[in-house]
Amino acid sequence: MSTTAATRRVLGIDPGSVRTGFGVIEVTGSRSSYVASGVIQTGKGSFAQRLHIIYTGIAEVIRAHQVSESAIEEVFVSRNIQSALKLGQARGAAICACAGDDLAVHEYSARAIKQALVGSGGADKDQVSYMVRAILSLQGVLREDAADALAVALAHTQHDRLSAQIASNKRRAIP
Amino acid sequence: MSTTAATRRVLGIDPGSVRTGFGVIEVTGSRSSYVASGVIQTGKGSFAQRLHIIYTGIAEVIRAHQVSESAIEEVFVSRNIQSALKLGQARGAAICACAGDDLAVHEYSARAIKQALVGSGGADKDQVSYMVRAILSLQGVLREDAADALAVALAHTQHDRLSAQIASNKRRAIP
Repeated sequence: MSTTAATRRVLGIDPGSVRTGFGVIEVTGSRSSYVASGVIQTGKGSFAQRLHIIYTGIAEVIRAHQVSESAIEEVFVSRNIQSALKLGQARGAAICACAGDDLAVHEYSARAIKQALVGSGGADKDQVSYMVRAILSLQGVLREDAADALAVALAHTQHDRLSAQIASNKRRAIP
Repeated sequence: MSTTAATRRVLGIDPGSVRTGFGVIEVTGSRSSYVASGVIQTGKGSFAQRLHIIYTGIAEVIRAHQVSESAIEEVFVSRNIQSALKLGQARGAAICACAGDDLAVHEYSARAIKQALVGSGGADKDQVSYMVRAILSLQGVLREDAADALAVALAHTQHDRLSAQIASNKRRAIP
């Protein structure tokens, strides 16, 4: 599982206090390929314990998959102040796990992510999920949090490198 | 600076994305004494860098002062969603620094902190600050973020142990 100097492993994170999605892609030149994705469930402990689960979960993903950089969605809106506080804490825990491993954390607005993947900042979730699966040649069901995490990782590798790749990849099943 | 088995060092945290206050007290039986307090300024870097400064700053306080447990104010309200998201992330970073050192993180509502220190859940900031300085026999100016951090640490040691201590302490200057 060693990576060469020209290969980068990008971790995308979709933080949440109940579920935090993660997705790791490998980038070699203009080619992005799927490495791993999943959802960290924070369980029913105290809020501090749940933040710790996010922190240790993201740290474990970074170690297990030799991640070299990370990307996370900027958040500007939320349903209400309570959910903003919870989401903020989950996001802070995830970012600190990256910072603890000295990974640069890149932030992208939802609009920039949609623009990079679909070509329109107003794209809906289904369009984003479709493009994630198409770009990474994934078959089967991808959970929404994991799809969003892979989307921000892919957005980080820039939109204009992605489109040409869809046709050339072989289809593979989501492990 | 070694602590005995009967002595606990409690870290109180007043998180914020611009300034995070901290206060460390030593608790031996029913006696609480001042160890350290201050404010972590997060500077002008990216938000991720500022979270990292909170995380490493709190981790450094824990190491430097041999902290054995921690306390933080519960937050339920905020000016608006933007400030709630920022505060949430700062709080998440601070809590993760404690969790990283396997410290239990105790949470107290603002009302419970005021009740513990002043005897009234509706006390104002000046009354809380006055009681922090009185209980810990501190003279001089204590910055608001540091006073709030010491207040939550003291609240953690319970209100009913504190009142009797004020008269018996000698006055000392804030270092």
